[in-house]
Amino acid sequence: MLSTIPVNLEKKSYNIAIAPNLLSQIGEQLQQLNIGKKVLIVSNSVIFDHYGEQMISSLEAAHFSVCYEIIPAGERHKTLLSVQKIYDTALENYLERSSTIIALGGGVIGDMAGFAAASWLRGINLIQVPTSLLAMVDAAIGGKTGVNHPQGKNLIGAFHQPKLVLIDPQVLNTLPQREFRAGMAEVIKYGVIWDAELFESLERAERLDHLDGISPDLLQTILAHSCQAKAEVVSQDEKEGGLRAILNYGHTIGHAIESLTGYRLLNHGEAVAIGMSVAGKIAVKMGFWDEHATERQDELISKTQLPKKVPPMLEIEEILETLKSDKKVKAGKVRFVLPEKIGSATVTDQVSPELVSEVIQSCQDKEDVTKNYPSD
Amino acid sequence: MLSTIPVNLEKKSYNIAIAPNLLSQIGEQLQQLNIGKKVLIVSNSVIFDHYGEQMISSLEAAHFSVCYEIIPAGERHKTLLSVQKIYDTALENYLERSSTIIALGGGVIGDMAGFAAASWLRGINLIQVPTSLLAMVDAAIGGKTGVNHPQGKNLIGAFHQPKLVLIDPQVLNTLPQREFRAGMAEVIKYGVIWDAELFESLERAERLDHLDGISPDLLQTILAHSCQAKAEVVSQDEKEGGLRAILNYGHTIGHAIESLTGYRLLNHGEAVAIGMSVAGKIAVKMGFWDEHATERQDELISKTQLPKKVPPMLEIEEILETLKSDKKVKAGKVRFVLPEKIGSATVTDQVSPELVSEVIQSCQDKEDVTKNYPSD
Repeated sequence: MLSTIPVNLEKKSYNIAIAPNLLSQIGEQLQQLNIGKKVLIVSNSVIFDHYGEQMISSLEAAHFSVCYEIIPAGERHKTLLSVQKIYDTALENYLERSSTIIALGGGVIGDMAGFAAASWLRGINLIQVPTSLLAMVDAAIGGKTGVNHPQGKNLIGAFHQPKLVLIDPQVLNTLPQREFRAGMAEVIKYGVIWDAELFESLERAERLDHLDGISPDLLQTILAHSCQAKAEVVSQDEKEGGLRAILNYGHTIGHAIESLTGYRLLNHGEAVAIGMSVAGKIAVKMGFWDEHATERQDELISKTQLPKKVPPMLEIEEILETLKSDKKVKAGKVRFVLPEKIGSATVTDQVSPELVSEVIQSCQDKEDVTKNYPSD
Repeated sequence: MLSTIPVNLEKKSYNIAIAPNLLSQIGEQLQQLNIGKKVLIVSNSVIFDHYGEQMISSLEAAHFSVCYEIIPAGERHKTLLSVQKIYDTALENYLERSSTIIALGGGVIGDMAGFAAASWLRGINLIQVPTSLLAMVDAAIGGKTGVNHPQGKNLIGAFHQPKLVLIDPQVLNTLPQREFRAGMAEVIKYGVIWDAELFESLERAERLDHLDGISPDLLQTILAHSCQAKAEVVSQDEKEGGLRAILNYGHTIGHAIESLTGYRLLNHGEAVAIGMSVAGKIAVKMGFWDEHATERQDELISKTQLPKKVPPMLEIEEILETLKSDKKVKAGKVRFVLPEKIGSATVTDQVSPELVSEVIQSCQDKEDVTKNYPSD
């Protein structure tokens, strides 16, 4: 069961390879690429404890010279300071322009290691080995790399395409279930904005809230369809000039909520789930989308046990102010991605702050601070 | 007397515009580009005192909204820390993806502001307004941006093409003459590796060591031919896969000398002049180049009052060790650019450490620590 999905970007084209136990074959996989013999693995200690040895064995058996840099786990370490540690390790090990950084981890590691690869010697090779569902279906594909600024997420970064994205679904077994559900938010997103077939597969599934309830076949479908969706969008629009913006569905509000809650209360997928629920309602109010479709979307979100309500401690005004500093702002106008039907979405800057305010109020949980927020 | 030189890079193509008093027309120049209304000028205090007001007036007259960030002058400020200050100013002023950073200054400002533009919001617009001869003919063209790592020059960076390079030769009047001569090192380089006609123009000039001895026509020729050479090489090889490497003529040894002397004793152009003199002799020893051509090159270096001797305090062994950590190392082999005739050069990794050592020894000034080193 090997799925190979091409990402077509002319000279920068690469493949996404998805198969169980692929991690133990990474050495052979890398031998097929035209890269030098030095690799620097960037990972966090939790992931590296699980998979580091297996990866190093496979790489060394294929005659790669391996070094590594372990960054503490967590979004708060996604900083220029961590990137500087990667630079130092690259320097100590004499990494060359033909050398390779392997990002072994979730989105934080992928973004950070990716930015180090983008900026060391003005760009060296990068291999993404995502270990979270979120990173597999989203962050690892498309070349976005970066770190956080103290005042905003992903404000510092670069586009840098990997040479290969290697996905081994087996590694999801060690992923905390809360993170699995967070990844499912992006999967639901692809269903809404791009792939009605994927959306319907999710509707037919008995459970979506736990890996144990999902068959290996459905998991392969989820991964392959999601990666395919992302690859198609990215191939048509590498640097977010147009189409790619639709991938930000649920992210406009989502980013604001993450930022205002200090990236602690909610993880990215949870914030995106809330963002999709809000955006769906805005789309209905503006006549883009019908009520029934929004309900179908919200049912998938519920079935995954993801939140839909805006946290009660956030003030409408501060959300609106935060939206203004969002990267997606163009000429002072906030851009929203809104669905038109299941499997299709569009981008608009015509959403009034008043409407945003009204919908957020209707989506805000006023009663119980904790009850709708997830735990592991 | 306006020279417009296109840099052809498909979607990333741009022009180099060269004319006296162009600085006072920057507003109109920017209006012709498809960019947003927010600009952030990055400069140092010396340059900004001279030209900041003039630039801001022209930009505001053309309805741009202007903010600025002033970095202290000097290579030692070319750090991630300075880039972080630019990020902070970009954030405070709500720079958007359509906004523009203008680099007003020499190579240090251009590289640093360029890297900030490359990495803020994963890349915003960049305009290079070089104020040193070195930056005009080299650093501002070609999209190389970056900062220094404590242990090596330009190890951190990105390729990010400007939307326009605006060159006003008038600003050279406030450039210290030592820096003017440093820029002439790169001009001589283009003569040697690419443009025999430029080389011969330089040979015909009465003086090359001082701006006062150079006619406005010769200055325009020097700028236009040098920019043309750089533009042609860059157009054929954006990211230093092949041809572009010849631009590193004199830089292999030059970078090592700069690095080992802590970027203080010599400026970049002086180090490159020494590097060219050494590389010329290596080329003769290896049968690439004839003795007479080396002498002609060394005469131009002397006429410009640039140094040719390796500083006496440097040990051969430490130079060889530093070469190994150079970015141009490939599979452990140091690559040298060697001239084949006046106007043409090639790249080789076949220079033995023994030959490098022998030639450096013959080029090293053993007698007087100070006599061959320049002052203002």
